Amino acid sequence: MIRIVVAGFKGKMGSTATKMVIENENFELVGVLDPFAKEENLKELPEYHGVDVPVFKDKNAVLSVSPEVWIDFTIPKVTYENTKFAIEHHISPVVGTTGLTEEQLKELIDRSKELQVGGLIAPNFAIGAVLMMQFAKKAAEYFPDVEIIELHHDNKLDAPSGTGLKTAEMMAEVRKPKKQGHPEEEELIAGARGADFEGMKIHSVRLPGLIAHQQVQFGGVGEGLTIRHDSYDRSSFMSGVALGCEKVVAIKELVYGLENLL
Amino acid sequence: MIRIVVAGFKGKMGSTATKMVIENENFELVGVLDPFAKEENLKELPEYHGVDVPVFKDKNAVLSVSPEVWIDFTIPKVTYENTKFAIEHHISPVVGTTGLTEEQLKELIDRSKELQVGGLIAPNFAIGAVLMMQFAKKAAEYFPDVEIIELHHDNKLDAPSGTGLKTAEMMAEVRKPKKQGHPEEEELIAGARGADFEGMKIHSVRLPGLIAHQQVQFGGVGEGLTIRHDSYDRSSFMSGVALGCEKVVAIKELVYGLENLL
Amino acid sequence: MIRIVVAGFKGKMGSTATKMVIENENFELVGVLDPFAKEENLKELPEYHGVDVPVFKDKNAVLSVSPEVWIDFTIPKVTYENTKFAIEHHISPVVGTTGLTEEQLKELIDRSKELQVGGLIAPNFAIGAVLMMQFAKKAAEYFPDVEIIELHHDNKLDAPSGTGLKTAEMMAEVRKPKKQGHPEEEELIAGARGADFEGMKIHSVRLPGLIAHQQVQFGGVGEGLTIRHDSYDRSSFMSGVALGCEKVVAIKELVYGLENLL
Amino acid sequence: MIRIVVAGFKGKMGSTATKMVIENENFELVGVLDPFAKEENLKELPEYHGVDVPVFKDKNAVLSVSPEVWIDFTIPKVTYENTKFAIEHHISPVVGTTGLTEEQLKELIDRSKELQVGGLIAPNFAIGAVLMMQFAKKAAEYFPDVEIIELHHDNKLDAPSGTGLKTAEMMAEVRKPKKQGHPEEEELIAGARGADFEGMKIHSVRLPGLIAHQQVQFGGVGEGLTIRHDSYDRSSFMSGVALGCEKVVAIKELVYGLENLL
Repeated sequence: MIRIVVAGFKGKMGSTATKMVIENENFELVGVLDPFAKEENLKELPEYHGVDVPVFKDKNAVLSVSPEVWIDFTIPKVTYENTKFAIEHHISPVVGTTGLTEEQLKELIDRSKELQVGGLIAPNFAIGAVLMMQFAKKAAEYFPDVEIIELHHDNKLDAPSGTGLKTAEMMAEVRKPKKQGHPEEEELIAGARGADFEGMKIHSVRLPGLIAHQQVQFGGVGEGLTIRHDSYDRSSFMSGVALGCEKVVAIKELVYGLENLL
Repeated sequence: MIRIVVAGFKGKMGSTATKMVIENENFELVGVLDPFAKEENLKELPEYHGVDVPVFKDKNAVLSVSPEVWIDFTIPKVTYENTKFAIEHHISPVVGTTGLTEEQLKELIDRSKELQVGGLIAPNFAIGAVLMMQFAKKAAEYFPDVEIIELHHDNKLDAPSGTGLKTAEMMAEVRKPKKQGHPEEEELIAGARGADFEGMKIHSVRLPGLIAHQQVQFGGVGEGLTIRHDSYDRSSFMSGVALGCEKVVAIKELVYGLENLL
Repeated sequence: MIRIVVAGFKGKMGSTATKMVIENENFELVGVLDPFAKEENLKELPEYHGVDVPVFKDKNAVLSVSPEVWIDFTIPKVTYENTKFAIEHHISPVVGTTGLTEEQLKELIDRSKELQVGGLIAPNFAIGAVLMMQFAKKAAEYFPDVEIIELHHDNKLDAPSGTGLKTAEMMAEVRKPKKQGHPEEEELIAGARGADFEGMKIHSVRLPGLIAHQQVQFGGVGEGLTIRHDSYDRSSFMSGVALGCEKVVAIKELVYGLENLL
Repeated sequence: MIRIVVAGFKGKMGSTATKMVIENENFELVGVLDPFAKEENLKELPEYHGVDVPVFKDKNAVLSVSPEVWIDFTIPKVTYENTKFAIEHHISPVVGTTGLTEEQLKELIDRSKELQVGGLIAPNFAIGAVLMMQFAKKAAEYFPDVEIIELHHDNKLDAPSGTGLKTAEMMAEVRKPKKQGHPEEEELIAGARGADFEGMKIHSVRLPGLIAHQQVQFGGVGEGLTIRHDSYDRSSFMSGVALGCEKVVAIKELVYGLENLL
């Protein structure tokens, strides 16, 4: 059993992670952390069905329960402090908060190597999404012709999606440079051919009912290869968090990106 | 058995139509027409495997074999003359050539009504494509939220495709006006959200290997409805030509669009 | 504003319907009914955010608020009594409960015609699903080659799904009889070619993560036509219930199946 | 420029390979081989547009043009003799014929290692199909819940397809054993749940218009991952043959399966 503490347990992601740790038979939840919590114990919250776990307000107090893994879903500023604290105390961090600076990241990784503490910081914990990106990158070596179609609910503000851009960036690293489509193609209506990212095209579909979906479509002479990920709800992230917890205790440094543990 | 003549039998579409008529057990090929043909009979051409059918150079000569249906895959100027000639002689035209003017079309339809001659002029003979457009129009009455993804080989010059635009036009006739996506959505890269057609979005994908495909995707609260047509090769048009030949002999006027016979 | 009452408001479907009526600006919720409710008014239940609507325990009491439409998500036995009661009192029923016998159905329809009361009993209220079945039936007239792939979460016990079977039945009414596949095809592993329904094949996929999806796939010479419905959550039924409420007040008899109002 | 000879150049695959070699600027076609050919030179065949390449009837004669790579699309018996001959003469074989026995394969591989001659024997040369199988195997490590849907034209005799079975075998090597679906699921019509391969389900769809397609669909909590390959025509194999020709000259043994060169 891996002894785990969850920081930021009152947020949406944090509470989902807390439940996952409780339900996973390989894990033992030894504490949760939130400086503004009013409870002393999780059993005061009906949604946890009487589970007896101490609520800490101060990170130093967490040391009393000797956790091996520190799950962190807080805010960037806090995350940085928490992750540093965890590493210094030989607790392996599993961090889902985004927004750390390059410098902070570098510092944390360097320190983890010095102290030989494993850890994971990941912008995306959905294993399926991470595999989709890995497969897309691999396929782009052989199929330079590729377009991305990402589909989301119509409340989304930005297009293309972060995952769409990340995927394009990863493919650009290995793909033979090429502009998709006929050199003389013409848009009868502006935007028909989508967003251009180093010659690849990204199309963003927004419709009610949809959640978060992405299709990476490759074309070659006489054939096509398509990789698609469908995310139906937030729970999809939890299998990646669980995998992270299992893997970090066996490595000796902090890595960035779940793909490094697959 | 319906007696059929094919005009323009030396072109790609015409020769495919000629073979379809020969193979269909409800049809009898009584002649083919091409003013520049050098053959006197189809059996001179090895690809027709000895089928004995006269080749006419002059449309007046066609009357000698009393056709009931006149399939026409020629060029716009010739098509107009041919279709008029067919109607005047009570032969039902089935025409796949595009490019007739509105005036020519009106004149031909009016004359067909006077003479009570059935006929069909269709820009698209693929039954599946025509059904896709009909279904999309019907669904647009109930789901104003819709985006079109059309996918073609990367030699295609125009985007969106003609079928994509036609589908959007048909949906616009019945759809409750609406701009897809969040009112404050933002394109991080221009074109991500596709071409705008009266608030609907059209996305054009171009990849080698693809032929001609279109997906009309509707979204509603908690659900999605998708209608997709895949065209793999030119032969897909022939089931529509065959259907046209069967239907025109039973109607009393020229109609425009295969959808009017479905 | 249409005056609506909801029977069975404490069940999953009923409470979703109640919220839909409250939020729809064309509707006025005038009462809810449940013989076992302890509340006197919806405002006692926090999930309704203080909406002031009387809770009735006896159906006769409902008449005091003069509803025009009676939404019913109860159990078969109660549904029958309720629907009869509604018709007798010139209230249009919109019923989502399944399980009425053929006889009960016939009796209710006959009575509705006598009294000229509009109404709707529907086994499926998802407009997208109903359109999918209608389109599939239409396409089956032209494409006898068709297979169904239905995909559901892996807690589902029966295969094929009810919707899959219903779709196959509807297509069988108009489809030219035909056994899919090569006459001499051979299953290397039993079941590979799916379930046989009058020559059509139905394939049932069961995976975690999935909700309720169905794809009806047609094939013709050189082309394919696919109609797909995705149901992401129970809320998908509510647009059909809303449409039913709007339509029943304008018709003069009880109809079975949402398709009759599309 | 790699010097290449093609054996079996009169067959469908062989002639497609011959044209690919002619058109690829990194390759030089130095000869073709067929014991029953009547021509002395490819330029006698109009489809090769006057390309001047000798036609050999005897494999010993091929040595006169010093090829580096020997492409072989013949019949199993001939393939074995040809491949052995090529290896003995330090020509790298690229073989697409299937049907060699395990023993023959082992012998050829052993001899290639002794002589340090690179080579490739591949049952499937479509790079997209090979990547699909690799990706499916990788994903099966993390997602034990998986079903395969393979779709082919309706002239196909066997179900599941060879590629479908191969994919299932590859996944079974790494997948956590599991029977898909609910333990108490029930087939209302036999075959609905597909063919069972070590607990995974395979569904075979057969429709006119289709060519060769396969979808490997994974499910996890709240998410799905799908990998799909579409083969539109025979030319899809040629990019794999070309890749094979480029890679075999750089390795020192015969490998089985294109995946070993990706």
